[in-house]
Amino acid sequence: MLIGGNGFVGRNLAFSLIEQGHSVTIVDRNSYDHPALRSRTTLGDAQDASLLVDVLTERQPDVVYHLAANSDIAAGVKDAGLDFGDTLMTTCALRAALQRRPVQQVVFASSSAIFGVSDSPLDEEPAHVPAPVSWYGKAKLASEYVLESLSLLQPNCEILLVRFPNVVGPLATHGVVFDFVRKLRADPALLEVLGNGHQTKPYLHVSELLQGIEFFRKRLGPGVARVNIGPPDLIDVRGIVAEVCDVLEVSPQVTYQDSPVGWIGDVPRYEFDSSAMQKAGFTIKTSSREAVRRAAQALASESVHP
Amino acid sequence: MLIGGNGFVGRNLAFSLIEQGHSVTIVDRNSYDHPALRSRTTLGDAQDASLLVDVLTERQPDVVYHLAANSDIAAGVKDAGLDFGDTLMTTCALRAALQRRPVQQVVFASSSAIFGVSDSPLDEEPAHVPAPVSWYGKAKLASEYVLESLSLLQPNCEILLVRFPNVVGPLATHGVVFDFVRKLRADPALLEVLGNGHQTKPYLHVSELLQGIEFFRKRLGPGVARVNIGPPDLIDVRGIVAEVCDVLEVSPQVTYQDSPVGWIGDVPRYEFDSSAMQKAGFTIKTSSREAVRRAAQALASESVHP
Repeated sequence: MLIGGNGFVGRNLAFSLIEQGHSVTIVDRNSYDHPALRSRTTLGDAQDASLLVDVLTERQPDVVYHLAANSDIAAGVKDAGLDFGDTLMTTCALRAALQRRPVQQVVFASSSAIFGVSDSPLDEEPAHVPAPVSWYGKAKLASEYVLESLSLLQPNCEILLVRFPNVVGPLATHGVVFDFVRKLRADPALLEVLGNGHQTKPYLHVSELLQGIEFFRKRLGPGVARVNIGPPDLIDVRGIVAEVCDVLEVSPQVTYQDSPVGWIGDVPRYEFDSSAMQKAGFTIKTSSREAVRRAAQALASESVHP
Repeated sequence: MLIGGNGFVGRNLAFSLIEQGHSVTIVDRNSYDHPALRSRTTLGDAQDASLLVDVLTERQPDVVYHLAANSDIAAGVKDAGLDFGDTLMTTCALRAALQRRPVQQVVFASSSAIFGVSDSPLDEEPAHVPAPVSWYGKAKLASEYVLESLSLLQPNCEILLVRFPNVVGPLATHGVVFDFVRKLRADPALLEVLGNGHQTKPYLHVSELLQGIEFFRKRLGPGVARVNIGPPDLIDVRGIVAEVCDVLEVSPQVTYQDSPVGWIGDVPRYEFDSSAMQKAGFTIKTSSREAVRRAAQALASESVHP
């Protein structure tokens, strides 16, 4: 069962699971115009715990992937209700529903944003107390705690909290690569960039994120496991501009702003400590630059989605 | 340690604990103009986990009472950030701080608002899944889950989640009785009431709430306990109007609105099932009507607070 299965990561995960022969069911407020996903989608608000109880009762899934969230972090900075509702209350509804209809495994799409700004690489349990900057990061942090509480009631439930860095790839609905491709298709002569272009972060290709999720999901035991899945390197926004322009074969005039962040709540730089991931035997083979490049190639070949 | 100790319930609790000879420390963003409380207050935002770690480290309290919350539920309906921040993120900050600096007992001021609208009396674990209406109720529900998660890390910690109904009494800063007294002092000839006046709820005098909290706190064992503390009866808003007018000896023109609720997010009627409380040996002796009357008397004799 995929909650928020029609979003960016959800679509990719759904297609991957279907291809592997798994039975897939999606709960999402939005539909996605593909027959394989449309036929598997229950349209509805994942903040409605009763709806989740109904679907859990009918479909009796072994695994629940919770991917529902407000994906417009900048909009969420202006309206806290977006993240309070779509990012956090979906988790509370799931927690309440699972209390009544237990499953074997729960995988939660958490985020590097739970940590906030830090000078040092972020490992699974950093020494500094978490201080998320955006409502998005706050909602993800609170969501982790909320799901942990399920483990108190159901000690045998296997709960995986996966902290995503920036994720890129085909079927994207948002994010910097998506935005640049969309803007440059509309006007190949001009690219307006949010922030000064020096924001520097790890970018992960969605295909490797999914490999990582499945790697750790298959190794779960009872209780809560936390893992940062991240690539070995970083790329700055100016590097992303270069890759996207190269893929699209355009040479626009590029404008930057003075601000070190793209919007209030943006984290200008962070570095994931993925040593726990590596120690467990999983490595990301694709660099941030290569992930961005492959994502741009995929998005350039897609028809424009609404 | 009282987080939000300068609010309505916090002030009453602080004075009561000081009177009993306990060492009291308060963290609150707002000061309260009384020497006994002012000298014990660390001014600061309880959403700052680092601040809480510092105070916990310095003061090493045995018990933490978490009373910080946005108390203007109607304002919170318009701006979700009020409850997301002051009601929920204070809880997340406390959870993160207690992970680093454990205490023996945690008492959390939860609310009847976590349950949402129900036709039947609300016991501790109602059959229906919780469906809070207001951001306030949602933030309190999520807070309960967040604090429960602490029990996973610290099984010996004693955590009490107390669901408050409407609470009234001296030193109030908000609420229907406070509003009526304030309005009638400003203009004894007119009282404008929000909603149609048929909103019917249990009202608890703060002195008995504090007795109840101490009763259950002293009987805590390791893990999480939940209790609804509520009076045996209800009173409607028209009944409150009558009591307040009688106490103040005024006969204003009273206007009502058409709406069954005072504001969007208001719950028009609820009934607390306090049988678990009674079964444990604690009873509320004051009726809702008497609690309202005593609160009006106390507030009428207080100087007007800012």
